Amino acid sequence: MTMQRAWRLRSRPDGEIADTDLELVEQALPELQDGEILVDVSYISMDPTNRIWMSDEEQYMPPVAIGDIMRAGVAGTVTASRNPNFEVGALVAGLGGYASHIVSDGSDFGPLADVPGLPLPKLFGSLGGTALTAYFGLLRVGEPKPGETVVVSAAAGAVGSIVGQIAKIKGCRAVGIAGGPEKCSYVVDELGFDACVDYKNGSVRDQLDAYCPDGIDVNFENVGGDIMQAVMERMNNFSRMALCGMISEYDTLDKITGPKAWPRILMSRIKVQGFIVSDYMDEFGTAMEELVPWALEGKIKTREDVREGLENALDVVRDLYKGGNQGKLLLKV
Amino acid sequence: MTMQRAWRLRSRPDGEIADTDLELVEQALPELQDGEILVDVSYISMDPTNRIWMSDEEQYMPPVAIGDIMRAGVAGTVTASRNPNFEVGALVAGLGGYASHIVSDGSDFGPLADVPGLPLPKLFGSLGGTALTAYFGLLRVGEPKPGETVVVSAAAGAVGSIVGQIAKIKGCRAVGIAGGPEKCSYVVDELGFDACVDYKNGSVRDQLDAYCPDGIDVNFENVGGDIMQAVMERMNNFSRMALCGMISEYDTLDKITGPKAWPRILMSRIKVQGFIVSDYMDEFGTAMEELVPWALEGKIKTREDVREGLENALDVVRDLYKGGNQGKLLLKV
Repeated sequence: MTMQRAWRLRSRPDGEIADTDLELVEQALPELQDGEILVDVSYISMDPTNRIWMSDEEQYMPPVAIGDIMRAGVAGTVTASRNPNFEVGALVAGLGGYASHIVSDGSDFGPLADVPGLPLPKLFGSLGGTALTAYFGLLRVGEPKPGETVVVSAAAGAVGSIVGQIAKIKGCRAVGIAGGPEKCSYVVDELGFDACVDYKNGSVRDQLDAYCPDGIDVNFENVGGDIMQAVMERMNNFSRMALCGMISEYDTLDKITGPKAWPRILMSRIKVQGFIVSDYMDEFGTAMEELVPWALEGKIKTREDVREGLENALDVVRDLYKGGNQGKLLLKV
Repeated sequence: MTMQRAWRLRSRPDGEIADTDLELVEQALPELQDGEILVDVSYISMDPTNRIWMSDEEQYMPPVAIGDIMRAGVAGTVTASRNPNFEVGALVAGLGGYASHIVSDGSDFGPLADVPGLPLPKLFGSLGGTALTAYFGLLRVGEPKPGETVVVSAAAGAVGSIVGQIAKIKGCRAVGIAGGPEKCSYVVDELGFDACVDYKNGSVRDQLDAYCPDGIDVNFENVGGDIMQAVMERMNNFSRMALCGMISEYDTLDKITGPKAWPRILMSRIKVQGFIVSDYMDEFGTAMEELVPWALEGKIKTREDVREGLENALDVVRDLYKGGNQGKLLLKV
C-alpha cells in the first residue's frame, strides 16, 4: 500500500496565497484501476501559472476544484502500471500535482528520454516546459528577424533567460528587464544579452531609451503592469508582442484595468497575441531537437533553483511572485 | 487667379471640436510652381481619423500643424498642372484638406477611374478609402474562415457596413452592433447581416450572448470602450481582433485606461492587431478588382450621406462622433 502526501486546495487565494488556502494531506492510495499508472514524483515544476489555476478567473484550463490536489507539472518514475503504454521503471513527465505520488490514466503523461549531459532538473525543468514556452512564444508569435530588437521582461527568470538566448541565436539584439544589479549582471555577463534594464534602479523608460535606440520590434511579455506599458510606448510600427504572462498582476487578476497602450496598438499597427505552450504540443519533439543541442553546446545556459521537501511547497511557490528564485524553480520531493 | 477657401487649424481640440479650433480662411493662390498641380475639390471625405489628426497625440502620420489646412481625403478635378503625370481635366483622389482647392506636388494624389454605374460619392466615398479599410482589415487581419462568427461595431457606418457584407460573401455569420432600431433594421434587413445588437436598447452583453451562440471568432473593432470590452469577453480561443478605430475614445485619447481584457487575450490566445489602410496601398488595385464587381452586382450595398457647403464642415465632422450620419459621410464643396 502506497501512502500519498499531497497538497489539496481548500480555498481560492484572495491576493497572496495564504497558509490556509492549501492543506497537506496524507492518505493511503487504493489499488490501481485498469488503465491507470502510479507515478512516484521526483520533481515538481513551480510555475507562475499555478496561481492562475488556484483562482476561478476565466482561464485556459479548468481551475483546480476545491478539495482536489493542486495541479503542477511533474517528472517521476512509473512504479506501478495497469496501462499498456507505460512500463514500470519508465521515466515520465506530465501534468500531476503538488504530491509525492500521482495516480493517472496516463493521458497527461509522456515518456522523458534521458539525455547524457543533461541532469533531470535541467532536462525536465529548464528545457521541458520552460524552454518550449520561450521557443514557441518568441519564434511563432514574436517572429523576430535578424537585426531586430527583442525585449523580454523577467529576463533572469526561467522563460525570459531562454527567450533572450534564442533571440541572440537568431541574430537579434536582446534586451532584458530584471530587478537588481545581480540579476542584470547574470543576464548580460553570463547569458550574453546585449543589455538589461534594472527596474529596481532608475527609470525603466530612460533605460529602455538608452538600450533600444532603434525602438522595440518584439516584446516577450511576462510581467504586465507599468513595465509592459513602458515597453509598449517604445514599440515600432509593425512590431509584435508575445503575451506569455503578467505575473505582476496574478494576485489581482479580477482588478486589471489594462494599459493605456491601446491607441498605440492601432497607430503603430502592433500585433499583440496571447499563447499557451500546450497549443504547440504536436511540435514539442521537433523543438527539442533544436533546444537540446543548443543546451549541450552551451548556446543556451540555464540555471535551476531546486528546493527540497514537499512540506515547503507553499513558501516555495510564493517565492516565485516575489522574484526570490534564481532560475527555474523546482521542488524535489 | 484662383480664390481658395480652406479651414485652417487654429488650436487642438480639448474634447469635442470647438468652433474656435478651426477657421475658414479665404486667400488668393499664388502661381503653381514647377511640379505642382491644382485640384478643384468636388468631395471631401469626413472620417473618424480627422479628429486624431487634429490632436498631437502620437499617431500614424504627423498631426496637422497649427495654421495648416485641415487634412482630409478628397476627390476632384485637375484644373491646372505643371506636373507631367497629371493632365488638366483628370479626375483624381488623394490626401487634400477641408478646402475648395488644393495645391499639391502630386505625390499624395492618384487617378480616379470612372466606373459606369458607380457615381463619384459611391466610387470615391464608399469604395475608395472606406471599402478598402473594411477589405484589408477583415481579410488580412481578421482572417475569417467560412462558418465563423464575425462581429463588427459601428455596423451601420461606412466601414462597418461593408465589413459585414464581405463577411457574408466569405461564408461567415455576421453580427453588427449599432445604435437604435432604425440602424439595426438597416444592417439586418437591407445589408443582410444575420443579427444586430442595439446598444441603445437593452444589454449589449445579453444580446451578444443571444446572437453569437458559438462565441466570437473575429472582432472588427471601430468603437472601443465598454462595447469592445463586452465583445472581447466573448471571443473564442484563437480568435482575431482587427483594431481599426476607437471612435468613442478619440475625444479623450490621452485618458484611455484600456479594457480589462488583457487576461482574456492571454487565456484565449487572442490576436489583437492594429492596422491602417494605407499600409496596403500597393494592393489597392487588386482589391478594387474584387470590390467594384461586388458593388455593381449588389453584393455590397453602400449608402452615402452627402452634405453640402464647405462652410458647414465643422458641424458635419462633429456629427460623425455623435453617430448622426447615415452611411459614408461626404461634404460636397
